[in-house]
Amino acid sequence: MQASDRLREICRVAARVFYNKGYDGASMQDIAEAVSLTKAGLYHHVGSKDRLLFEIMNYGMDILQETVINQVESIADPREKLRRLIAGHIDLIVRARDFEITVILHENRSLKGELREKINLRKRSYIHLLEQLIERVQALDPRPPRISPALAAFALLGMVNWLYQWYRPEGPIPQQELAATYVNFFFRGLLGEG
Amino acid sequence: MQASDRLREICRVAARVFYNKGYDGASMQDIAEAVSLTKAGLYHHVGSKDRLLFEIMNYGMDILQETVINQVESIADPREKLRRLIAGHIDLIVRARDFEITVILHENRSLKGELREKINLRKRSYIHLLEQLIERVQALDPRPPRISPALAAFALLGMVNWLYQWYRPEGPIPQQELAATYVNFFFRGLLGEG
Repeated sequence: MQASDRLREICRVAARVFYNKGYDGASMQDIAEAVSLTKAGLYHHVGSKDRLLFEIMNYGMDILQETVINQVESIADPREKLRRLIAGHIDLIVRARDFEITVILHENRSLKGELREKINLRKRSYIHLLEQLIERVQALDPRPPRISPALAAFALLGMVNWLYQWYRPEGPIPQQELAATYVNFFFRGLLGEG
Repeated sequence: MQASDRLREICRVAARVFYNKGYDGASMQDIAEAVSLTKAGLYHHVGSKDRLLFEIMNYGMDILQETVINQVESIADPREKLRRLIAGHIDLIVRARDFEITVILHENRSLKGELREKINLRKRSYIHLLEQLIERVQALDPRPPRISPALAAFALLGMVNWLYQWYRPEGPIPQQELAATYVNFFFRGLLGEG
């Protein structure tokens, strides 16, 4: 289920506050002020601080679904589909607009119980999609697989998700070059010489 | 400069408290209780909460230096040295003992100013070592390099540091198999067919 525009706006602003002050350091009052709501108004929209964190992460997964996964849905060739998926995921991680949401999505220790499980379910479903696609790419290659689809998927997620730690789009490496280099690196690692 | 055993013990326990409660959620009183010191006693050892976070990260870098970098120092062959360095880094990330310290080392947003810069300097020095080693491995190969040493180093750090998000030593993939698979995957990505 997708969040409403108003909830999405609250999520974007709250993500910035959590990013700057930490989840435990930021109060609901801080967030209410940042989104120009009363504290009661904020609680009306999001229910609780836990729930707000969940909504931010859920929104992060919505963005992944809409701007990365859905964009490659109609591509038939598994290799092209995987290449485009990697480039799309890189684009998501490095674009400044959703930076705080991306960071918070990967620090899910603050989320507990059922809400955490719901987010992990969505993450696992993405990993499963990656594994299946990798398996299809391997099946097109005449040589026996060099790495299990699961380990390859996690290696890929590591390479790509780690970008937020060091890559800056305004730095010396253009994003196009980064994406092409990483896609080629991953395919060599997966299949050997192309 | 290496921390004393007492400070290291405080770092290990405090890392666990920060991990569980968050840096902003944990008070110096919480940490004092966990290390069986009075609050005044804790301040005597670490100076301030900021400084304690710095000491934890600095200790994390000490562990990397001692248990990973120093262990491969005497290896002459760049390929063997890089293989052993990757396996050593994987071992550091996945072993349970230092789990909280490893996680905190990668969440350095809470650290500010000069202390943050000191940790980043140590991290950059490790990245530089990786880049140089990768360059030496590429130079042994007759084919032209496929990826810059910097991008390869960050791809490697991503693959390896991301392990804390998903890999569990008690799970279905033995650590030896993980390390061998990742080392081979990285070398194929770096050089093409081995």
